[in-house]
Parts: sequence; C-alpha cells; structure tokens
Amino acid sequence: MSRYPQELLKLIAFFKKFPGVGSKTAERFAFQLLQWSQDEVDQFAGTISNILENIIPCPDCGCLMDQSQTEAICLFCDPAKRDSSSLCIVASPKDVYAFEETRSHSGFYHVIGALLSPLDGATPEKLQLHKLKERAGRLGVKEAIIALDSTVEGDATALYIKEELKALNISVSRLAFGLPMGSTLDYVDGGTLARALSGRQCF
Amino acid sequence: MSRYPQELLKLIAFFKKFPGVGSKTAERFAFQLLQWSQDEVDQFAGTISNILENIIPCPDCGCLMDQSQTEAICLFCDPAKRDSSSLCIVASPKDVYAFEETRSHSGFYHVIGALLSPLDGATPEKLQLHKLKERAGRLGVKEAIIALDSTVEGDATALYIKEELKALNISVSRLAFGLPMGSTLDYVDGGTLARALSGRQCF
Repeated sequence: MSRYPQELLKLIAFFKKFPGVGSKTAERFAFQLLQWSQDEVDQFAGTISNILENIIPCPDCGCLMDQSQTEAICLFCDPAKRDSSSLCIVASPKDVYAFEETRSHSGFYHVIGALLSPLDGATPEKLQLHKLKERAGRLGVKEAIIALDSTVEGDATALYIKEELKALNISVSRLAFGLPMGSTLDYVDGGTLARALSGRQCF
Repeated sequence: MSRYPQELLKLIAFFKKFPGVGSKTAERFAFQLLQWSQDEVDQFAGTISNILENIIPCPDCGCLMDQSQTEAICLFCDPAKRDSSSLCIVASPKDVYAFEETRSHSGFYHVIGALLSPLDGATPEKLQLHKLKERAGRLGVKEAIIALDSTVEGDATALYIKEELKALNISVSRLAFGLPMGSTLDYVDGGTLARALSGRQCF
C-alpha cells in the first residue's frame, strides 16, 4: 500500500526482514507500535540498538553471554559443571538453548556459526575448525556429537567436520534420524521413513 | 528459557507484545536481529524511536500523515479529490488504507479511534463524536457510512453513532453483512448465514 506515510513504510520494511513476517503481518506490527507510549517505544529502540554490544559470543565456545556478566567464564564453559569428555557441535547459539532445555547433554558445546554453503559465502574457512580441533584437544574430548540440521548443507558440513576430526582420534557421532515423536506413519515423508527403517534398532 | 542472556530476554519480551507473536516466534526474531549489522540495527532502532513523532494523525479526519509532509492538508482530506457528500466512519487509521485499496469509496473518512468498551476505558467521550458531527455539518455530508467491526463492540458503537447523527438529518448506513466472497455454505457459521438470509437481495 503505497499511500502509507514514508516513515511507516520504512518501519514495515524492517519488520518484513524477520522470519515468517510478510507484508500483512509487518503492517499489523507497525500499527501496533503506533499505539505504544513514547516511553515503551524508546525502551524498545534502546534495547535493539544496544543488543549487539550487550550480547557477545563466548570466545571459547561461541555461545551467547551478557557483556555485563560478572563471571569471566561463559555459562556453558564451566568445567566444574560440564562433562569434558563429550562435545556437541552446533551451527547456531540458539541450538545450544534447545539442547539445554532437553537436559540430555551434560558435555560442552561448540558453535561453528554457519553451515557450509559456498554460494552464500559460507566456505570451510568460515567454520574456523582449527578452533574446534584445538579446543577438543585441550578439553580431552572423547566423543564429538555433530548436531546439525538434516539438510543438504547440514549433511555436507557434518561430513566435512568428521573428516577434519579424524586425525584427533576421537569418536564422532551424529544425531539420529527417524520418526519425530508422536508422528503417525501416514504423515511421515518417504525420506524420513527410509532413514528410520535403515536405522532401526534392537527392541 | 531462563538461561538466555538478560538483554536477549528483554528483547524477546518486547517482540512478544506484537499481535500473534508467541515465545517461539519472539525468540526467532531476537536471534535474527543478532545477525544484523550494527548499522541496520541502528537504523531500525532509530526508525522505531522516532515513529510516534514522525507519524501524526490528521487533526481533521484522524488518518495518518507524515510529520514532514509539505502539504498542510492530509492525503484523504483534499476536497478537490474527494466527494464530500459521503463520509466513511472507521475505528482505526489502518481501516482507511484497507478501503482505499479496494477503490470503492471516493468520499471522506473519519477515524473515531476506538470502539465503545466501557470496561476497557473506551467510553463514549473517547470517540469525540462532537468532532464528527461538526465535520459532517461543515462538509455537507449526505450519507454517513458506518464501517465498524462486526463484533459486540462494533455493533454497540454503530448504534451509538447512529443515534448521535440523528439530529443532523443525514442518511446513515452500515456495511452489509453476509457471506464472505468465495465462501462455501458448508464452512459459514450460523450467525453469518442467518444475517445473509435476512439481508437477501433481489437478483
């Protein structure tokens, strides 16, 4: 709708950058914002403009930490609380929180920050695997768990990491593929079904 | 997920204020924002913090206009371009753009800003109907079209406005109720069906 005021169009364009937000939703967000108080709007804008300064990646594992955090060590890098024999390799800091929520992994994490996708500029150098290898050696990791997306990019990256870790003499595993919990076979796609069949386990 | 950094939780809380945004979506938005450049983030924050200053309601009709707009007159208040005999009464400025998109109304608009809902503080005074009445008289309006939601609040407000306009001796109409375009009877609720039947038209 080209008749919206200029500044509103600008705001709508910003909202459209978020995942899953189309024109209609972005317009709804912008009109909602117009109903906030100046104070709320200012606080929102302030939080946004400082977010990149306030949230920094842990230099060791790549997980997020508060800039203002008093402890020098990141929440997920404390050797007293984590089991150093296993290291879970994820693509984004968000994945770390998803695993923590499940309480199924007590080891360390390592965020590689991207999946291999040379056309998008994500070359092997971007993964900085020398950091991963150095860290795995330093921690005395026995098992590296590759926890990447089940996509073409995820598969390629997993293979690449596996090759790179070969020299370190640690066992490398990857997340299981199969039926999602609570699924009915009727609604599961063929690829998943085939992987679930080939990966069947003693029962 | 209470382990997110403090500032990230703050940002997530802000995103959750938008319509249709739950925890999961708000988290996705926040993590997306972390991948923007500082420049983009600053521009976004700047647009937000100035939005209430930059977008102002037209003092006459209540539609939105750019603060910086060179013409003194609002886009929808230009008597040379609009037909002053009909006035469309809507609740929010967003509705104006929806009608403009349909190109079905060439008259003026009047934004009342809220629907009657005394429990939420939206009392009759809030609608400032004296402004509407003064304007309708000044423009020489022949027909007032009440274009409000088809809800309890919308119905109550429409009735109230109709009563208030009685003294002005102008014809008052309301949007038609009936089947939405492209609907199949099977999926239409009983209330709509009853209204469509009672409002049936010669064919």
